[in-house]
Amino acid sequence: MNLHIAQRMHNIKPFIVMELLQRAQQLQAQGRDVIHMEIGEPDFATPPLVQAAAAKFLQQGDAKYTAAAGLPELRAAIAAYYRQNYGVAVDAGRIFITPGASGAFLLAFGSSLNPGQAVMMADPCYPCNANFVQLFNAETQLVAVDPATNYQLDAGLIAQNWRANTSGVLIASPANPTGSLLSNTALAAAIDQVQALGGCFYADEIYHGLDYAEPPATALASHDQVFVINSFSKFFGMTGWRIGWLIVPDSHVAVVERLAQNIFISTSSQAQYAALASFSAENMTELRRRRDEFKIRRDYLYENLLRLGFKITAKPEGAFYIYADCSTFSQNSYQFAKDLLEAEGVAVTPGTDFGYNGADKHIRFAYTASIPRMAEALTRLERFICR
Amino acid sequence: MNLHIAQRMHNIKPFIVMELLQRAQQLQAQGRDVIHMEIGEPDFATPPLVQAAAAKFLQQGDAKYTAAAGLPELRAAIAAYYRQNYGVAVDAGRIFITPGASGAFLLAFGSSLNPGQAVMMADPCYPCNANFVQLFNAETQLVAVDPATNYQLDAGLIAQNWRANTSGVLIASPANPTGSLLSNTALAAAIDQVQALGGCFYADEIYHGLDYAEPPATALASHDQVFVINSFSKFFGMTGWRIGWLIVPDSHVAVVERLAQNIFISTSSQAQYAALASFSAENMTELRRRRDEFKIRRDYLYENLLRLGFKITAKPEGAFYIYADCSTFSQNSYQFAKDLLEAEGVAVTPGTDFGYNGADKHIRFAYTASIPRMAEALTRLERFICR
Ligand SMILES: Cc1ncc(COP(=O)(O)O)c(C=O)c1O
Ligand SMILES: Cc1ncc(COP(=O)(O)O)c(C=O)c1O
Repeated sequence: MNLHIAQRMHNIKPFIVMELLQRAQQLQAQGRDVIHMEIGEPDFATPPLVQAAAAKFLQQGDAKYTAAAGLPELRAAIAAYYRQNYGVAVDAGRIFITPGASGAFLLAFGSSLNPGQAVMMADPCYPCNANFVQLFNAETQLVAVDPATNYQLDAGLIAQNWRANTSGVLIASPANPTGSLLSNTALAAAIDQVQALGGCFYADEIYHGLDYAEPPATALASHDQVFVINSFSKFFGMTGWRIGWLIVPDSHVAVVERLAQNIFISTSSQAQYAALASFSAENMTELRRRRDEFKIRRDYLYENLLRLGFKITAKPEGAFYIYADCSTFSQNSYQFAKDLLEAEGVAVTPGTDFGYNGADKHIRFAYTASIPRMAEALTRLERFICR
Repeated sequence: MNLHIAQRMHNIKPFIVMELLQRAQQLQAQGRDVIHMEIGEPDFATPPLVQAAAAKFLQQGDAKYTAAAGLPELRAAIAAYYRQNYGVAVDAGRIFITPGASGAFLLAFGSSLNPGQAVMMADPCYPCNANFVQLFNAETQLVAVDPATNYQLDAGLIAQNWRANTSGVLIASPANPTGSLLSNTALAAAIDQVQALGGCFYADEIYHGLDYAEPPATALASHDQVFVINSFSKFFGMTGWRIGWLIVPDSHVAVVERLAQNIFISTSSQAQYAALASFSAENMTELRRRRDEFKIRRDYLYENLLRLGFKITAKPEGAFYIYADCSTFSQNSYQFAKDLLEAEGVAVTPGTDFGYNGADKHIRFAYTASIPRMAEALTRLERFICR
């Protein structure tokens, strides 16, 4: 058999964190206590009201294909959420329900990118977003970012790095792995710049809701015709359900519908009916309570990492990550993470999973563990760096 | 904004049936009784044991991301199913759990196809399978099939139509829309031919289990190193849950794992725990009972369509479709389907959704409706063609 590997796969790197996770599980199987600060998902369970809605739907037993774009009532509920939460009017017909933000990226890039075109994004960034671009034989144009722009692309960097084959720009704010935000005015300026250059703007807003300072505006507030990617995974606490959404420019409604029909048929009907319960006042109160808990954890971890001698130059104002410079202790973040796991049973993610820019000198800590667990992790970490 | 549409999207046609479905729903909203014979999903509910497993999992409330390849216990259960059902040994490490067969196709083609390569498939065929190929900027090489090969590709057609850029062949047996099967010996010969030509073989086995004559062998029985695509949607009755699987050649295990991590993160954890209940003896008994019911419907619909003057040249031995030649009544299957819906409230799918070969002269009837409902549909159909 001619079992060749597609060329695009050579550009798609494995995640180091998966190797560490496997090793962590091995250690646990051997009876070791491992503290997980490597995983990018909330430790909270699915919210009770969402659970209840899923249980109710389950009793009816009608888990059939839905419309490819999603349940009309869920699309309408999301449109209402944009009105209430952001003061932005968006037609429900532009909202597509997808299997996570992951599915949203498949539709956004699949419907808008040609081979050879390039999408600009920050380095460091969430590596899958870069890999979605490669999937369609387009190129990722990574631009190194630093504290000067709060580890985000801005209008200046965009103008400076624009190339002949650049077709668009992706900004994730709050960002993974840095937790950093672009201010609302800087976001608007960045979108204006992309528009002036004739590009297409993609906003990954998956960490909206998990923000601890000025609430971020949606990209749609400054420009109506952009792609917005979001998800029920993080703020809404539904990772394993695999449900998110995509808002597309008017020009792309018909093609994205066709693409969704072909590659997904539809998103889990269970997950859609469950997600419908997300927007009730009672559930939003619960989600904001969880957000406040994340904020307390953020403050706690931030203080303590600084105390131990980590440098944190990206001010973490959102998501549930701190991207810490570990160069005082090691110039090799991968080795650092491996040794920390073996010696102390604390799992973290090396910067190398997120790009090239200073990657060897950074560690991503996820505060998806309780304060008592993080306290224990910090004790172990302190012992490790003083060994 | 530079809101261009990706070129690949121009090759991806909309489904006519979606337009008809929308119109059908409009008519229903107006109080008309519509009989649905256009929809490609079982009318049976999720099997009770699968429902119960989902409910149990829901109570534990732990719907988190799983391993990208899927739950180890589900992969092992599928491996055991291949041993018991087909007498074939397949390593669980080669089995990936995916969001439906749709997700399986994304991984199979994404990991093995380069732009410009072509995958050969039968015309007529399930249109999404062709569109997955386009998604990766590869080409679909449609080969017209007819009763001579029971509407399937075989070794002869493969050899005859092989081109310089052909990199692989996809066979779906039982097929959508024809319900036709390739015999086990013809399947083995086809795979041998593809191997002799240095190509890659993709087997879409989603309608396995829904077969009414000689039980089809899996492609893995004749050659170990092929891609096999399957799903919990059809025989297992779980369409809306969005769960399926992909078996990959050893050469592709590592890259497919990487691709799955990037584009899905994981498949719905709920759906995976629910699907685990599929393989119990009690559930298999229920599924076989449903299969027997489909067989009775197949016989009923087949007899009656012939009686009304439709020609059926593809012997429907599997799935839940009959692909009927309507040329006695119309040379325009799209118009026929539209008029039938308006005049009589019977929804069917025009052949034009499945390719070019005789598409204007064929209608796909899905027997995903009960016998009494089909009886009523046939009465209306008879009135329609005699009008
Ligand atoms: C920045 C960012 N975007 C998108 C995703 C995809 O998440 P999901 O597919 O669960 O919505 C993640 C997940 O970690 C992420 O961190
Ligand atoms: C031949 C064939 N393959 C694949 C699929 C995809 O189904 P799913 O993604 O629900 O498993 C279908 C659905 O109708 C089909 O008919």
